[in-house]
Amino acid sequence: MHIGLIGLGKMGFNMRERLRAKGIEVTGFDRSPERTDVPDLEALVASLPSPRIIWVMVPAGEITHAVIEDLSQLLSEDDLVIDGGNSRFTDDQIHATLLAQKGIRFLDCGVSGGVWGLENGYGLMAGGSDEDIELALPIFDALRPEGDRAESFVHVGDVGAGHYAKMVHNGIEYGLMQSYAEGYELLEAKDIVKDVHGTFAAWQKGTVVRSWLLDLVVKALEEDPRLATIAGYVEDSGEGRWTVEEAIANSIPAPAITAALFARFNSRQEDSPSMKMVAALRNQFGGHAVKPAQPKPE
Amino acid sequence: MHIGLIGLGKMGFNMRERLRAKGIEVTGFDRSPERTDVPDLEALVASLPSPRIIWVMVPAGEITHAVIEDLSQLLSEDDLVIDGGNSRFTDDQIHATLLAQKGIRFLDCGVSGGVWGLENGYGLMAGGSDEDIELALPIFDALRPEGDRAESFVHVGDVGAGHYAKMVHNGIEYGLMQSYAEGYELLEAKDIVKDVHGTFAAWQKGTVVRSWLLDLVVKALEEDPRLATIAGYVEDSGEGRWTVEEAIANSIPAPAITAALFARFNSRQEDSPSMKMVAALRNQFGGHAVKPAQPKPE
Amino acid sequence: MHIGLIGLGKMGFNMRERLRAKGIEVTGFDRSPERTDVPDLEALVASLPSPRIIWVMVPAGEITHAVIEDLSQLLSEDDLVIDGGNSRFTDDQIHATLLAQKGIRFLDCGVSGGVWGLENGYGLMAGGSDEDIELALPIFDALRPEGDRAESFVHVGDVGAGHYAKMVHNGIEYGLMQSYAEGYELLEAKDIVKDVHGTFAAWQKGTVVRSWLLDLVVKALEEDPRLATIAGYVEDSGEGRWTVEEAIANSIPAPAITAALFARFNSRQEDSPSMKMVAALRNQFGGHAVKPAQPKPE
Amino acid sequence: MHIGLIGLGKMGFNMRERLRAKGIEVTGFDRSPERTDVPDLEALVASLPSPRIIWVMVPAGEITHAVIEDLSQLLSEDDLVIDGGNSRFTDDQIHATLLAQKGIRFLDCGVSGGVWGLENGYGLMAGGSDEDIELALPIFDALRPEGDRAESFVHVGDVGAGHYAKMVHNGIEYGLMQSYAEGYELLEAKDIVKDVHGTFAAWQKGTVVRSWLLDLVVKALEEDPRLATIAGYVEDSGEGRWTVEEAIANSIPAPAITAALFARFNSRQEDSPSMKMVAALRNQFGGHAVKPAQPKPE
Repeated sequence: MHIGLIGLGKMGFNMRERLRAKGIEVTGFDRSPERTDVPDLEALVASLPSPRIIWVMVPAGEITHAVIEDLSQLLSEDDLVIDGGNSRFTDDQIHATLLAQKGIRFLDCGVSGGVWGLENGYGLMAGGSDEDIELALPIFDALRPEGDRAESFVHVGDVGAGHYAKMVHNGIEYGLMQSYAEGYELLEAKDIVKDVHGTFAAWQKGTVVRSWLLDLVVKALEEDPRLATIAGYVEDSGEGRWTVEEAIANSIPAPAITAALFARFNSRQEDSPSMKMVAALRNQFGGHAVKPAQPKPE
Repeated sequence: MHIGLIGLGKMGFNMRERLRAKGIEVTGFDRSPERTDVPDLEALVASLPSPRIIWVMVPAGEITHAVIEDLSQLLSEDDLVIDGGNSRFTDDQIHATLLAQKGIRFLDCGVSGGVWGLENGYGLMAGGSDEDIELALPIFDALRPEGDRAESFVHVGDVGAGHYAKMVHNGIEYGLMQSYAEGYELLEAKDIVKDVHGTFAAWQKGTVVRSWLLDLVVKALEEDPRLATIAGYVEDSGEGRWTVEEAIANSIPAPAITAALFARFNSRQEDSPSMKMVAALRNQFGGHAVKPAQPKPE
Repeated sequence: MHIGLIGLGKMGFNMRERLRAKGIEVTGFDRSPERTDVPDLEALVASLPSPRIIWVMVPAGEITHAVIEDLSQLLSEDDLVIDGGNSRFTDDQIHATLLAQKGIRFLDCGVSGGVWGLENGYGLMAGGSDEDIELALPIFDALRPEGDRAESFVHVGDVGAGHYAKMVHNGIEYGLMQSYAEGYELLEAKDIVKDVHGTFAAWQKGTVVRSWLLDLVVKALEEDPRLATIAGYVEDSGEGRWTVEEAIANSIPAPAITAALFARFNSRQEDSPSMKMVAALRNQFGGHAVKPAQPKPE
Repeated sequence: MHIGLIGLGKMGFNMRERLRAKGIEVTGFDRSPERTDVPDLEALVASLPSPRIIWVMVPAGEITHAVIEDLSQLLSEDDLVIDGGNSRFTDDQIHATLLAQKGIRFLDCGVSGGVWGLENGYGLMAGGSDEDIELALPIFDALRPEGDRAESFVHVGDVGAGHYAKMVHNGIEYGLMQSYAEGYELLEAKDIVKDVHGTFAAWQKGTVVRSWLLDLVVKALEEDPRLATIAGYVEDSGEGRWTVEEAIANSIPAPAITAALFARFNSRQEDSPSMKMVAALRNQFGGHAVKPAQPKPE
């Protein structure tokens, strides 16, 4: 099997390596001349046997949209595009429809595993038709960990379902990380706890909270036992937001995942307008002193 | 009527003034020589007619406890102590029992109104026996706003019930302030909103959200339209915490009040250990860059 | 002044009455033959002097959109449409653009006050051009409470800003109601509190939490002291959701308002799928008994 | 080594089995005649070599306290009591002091692993002196999974620290379960997701959210794919509450863990007083219909 792979960033680069190691021929395209195998999309398309299979692994939103648009011009009937990025599931039907106008097929596939996926294999959640899934199965099998397919790959449903599942996966991930993080803060704050790293380490086997993320907590604390070099500043990249928006759209209470999202927003605020107002109000009614705002450095 | 008043801080000082203006004779005691009417508790007790009535208006916890302890030594059978501070309701029974050993009577009374109470009158929530309430009624009537007594005074129940009601009152207050504050931040963040102060101002009459706290929001924004001088740093003084603890003790979900409490905790953290951990984890699994911690100024 | 008013439901009906009482001539149209003044939109338009002013007061979303679409066909250059319903602020620019194609002018105006607005007057938040606001000012002045205009009317900004402010107003309203409600549950649960209604009543004057909503709490408890006739089932109508979505879109933590929204979602679930899963997990790891699901009545 | 074990319930029974399988002689005592090895505590104490080691595995609170009290009467200097139950960490110092009056030694040890611990081994978190830990090490080694001790056992700190760590462990557990549960509800609600069980199954290898709890989610859905037999009703047993109380005591925001706790409270309410009040308020100001309360079945 010989496929194309567009996007050779942190995820795509590793995936090309894993696919090749598993015997899939991969022609990769990236804007970076050092990473790309071909000079442009035209060359990529020209290099592939028919029906062509192209895995798209670029940032969600406008960039993915532009790539799909380009592919709709370059590909032919019965070719298959797989969007493996973190697209919002609502984009998938738009992309599928665009491609279908030329008879080009489409799958969406959520990919989890981060930088460890190269070695461990990736967890995969796909959406699309049975027929298209069948065609791409050798790729999925190469990307996922060895062993029982059902433990690392799922055909979730029709187009969009794969990214929906990935979105929920990431929402859960937000909640899990926040839970460990709150526990960390509670251990860290208590002086009777003499060994925070050791406590997390001892949870790795036997306890109810053991997990891969827990192993990473232990690893992080091994490298920097009090996280002294890391600021409490956390980005978010879309899927946590979409998860909460879906919760709202479906009238589902999702307080833990939402708490995790809001904690990230909080972490990026230098000074909170809300809390300025609460301080102002306490001053107004109770005469409670306010802390003066720090002048911004010029 | 002639009563004693212990504690002439922000609240007690104003209350002495209001009581006197309403025709109650007040002998005040405070550690500050400039504010006190008598040199010590002994002199305060000696100045009062029997049965003596003493209103205690000092910080909750150890200080209140020490004052009650002293009074239990100095007062006589049938004297009445009223704890008008923000004591935890669970302290009231302890204080009542201590005083009852000498036949001294006890009422607890939550007082709301802040620095505006001098002019507007205070809202009052009392706990204790009918007989003791009856004795103290002229004081309550002097402190509360004029008009219908039921709109500013309540005999909530037996000893402790007054402070329980005050605790809930303050818990609600946390939630109300947080709600307005979140709304403020949403208005402030949106560039199509050209007049944040004007928007709050226009809510004062006619809308569903009109309230005294809203009037104070307007006042705060009049003084400093973007709250530029005030840091988003908010203290908390016990009752919010106790409210959440009572919610837990009674298996009651109280998510809005708890959110308000946690927002205050957040506001006082320079860097969040939890968020350090989330940043560390994202770096571990996804290779996402972390923001380096700022070196502390020496 | 003579204006048209489309939609004579709970809000519109009262507004027609208030406008007429204040000397504004109103021709109302409603699908209900008992309420309408004219048989159809054509007749409404024909009845009005030029430039026509039509206030639209129908449910947000599709119905408002259909009415605006119809008006764009029926009205003429320089006529003015005011959307006073609870439209999402993002709809306003769409409607303004649609009408502008015919030279028809557009204002959006959030209206608060509920069924009490007839008597008390309404709080109003408008978006649009200075010129259009100027034209509509007599209507705003008739609808709002008497007294200082700045306390009940605001020109928030350009088109959309009025509904944005109304959305935030309602988000705050969610948080305020939830806060009082949590406090109610805490008072209700505690047996030392002998008079829950009396406690809320006593907060009406003097306390920090006094508000119009508090007055309504008192009224509700007067009518039904333990709310025995009312199920804990609460609808939501869009603006709470949009407020949280805006919080997310602007990276603003809004935990109290979100808690209020999720509490409503919770209130409408007969059985929670999330909690089924938590129960299932506790059973899996700890052997903790689960409560069997109730068979649905046939 | 020969030790005593008090309490042969779900946890203790399995622990006796595992200890014996690992070559530790165990005399167990339980109130149930079918499970116990000896008729009473006196017989248990008499059966053990000096210094005696007794592991207490009974419900936290009064029962643990009574057992420790009894042991303080029956044991001798240099004997060792290990509290392996889920005691609140604040009880440990009380118990240690009580026993120390007789020269009896004390360790607290949090135990995690549930019903699977018999087979998998338990995760252990201990508090106490180095010397006492040393003495009990063969027991810890028998209970924990084989392999690197640091991955399943930690000496957290002095007396109380073991249970503190266990409390935090369980707090985290609440957050993790809630996160998976919210994700479950989001998948379950979406009709484009055709295979909820398969989706969770596919997360077991390779994804960021893989964990032991996830494996149990998969197992639960295997047994009952829509959890149709299980009510969304979840108990809580103390440690979640204590975790939130510790968060409050240390001014730490813990919104995800608290959300998980409140979700359990919610799950046990047939009708929510808070939501009755919100419904009542919406009716008061907006005339919105309320849902009548269901009459209780007689």
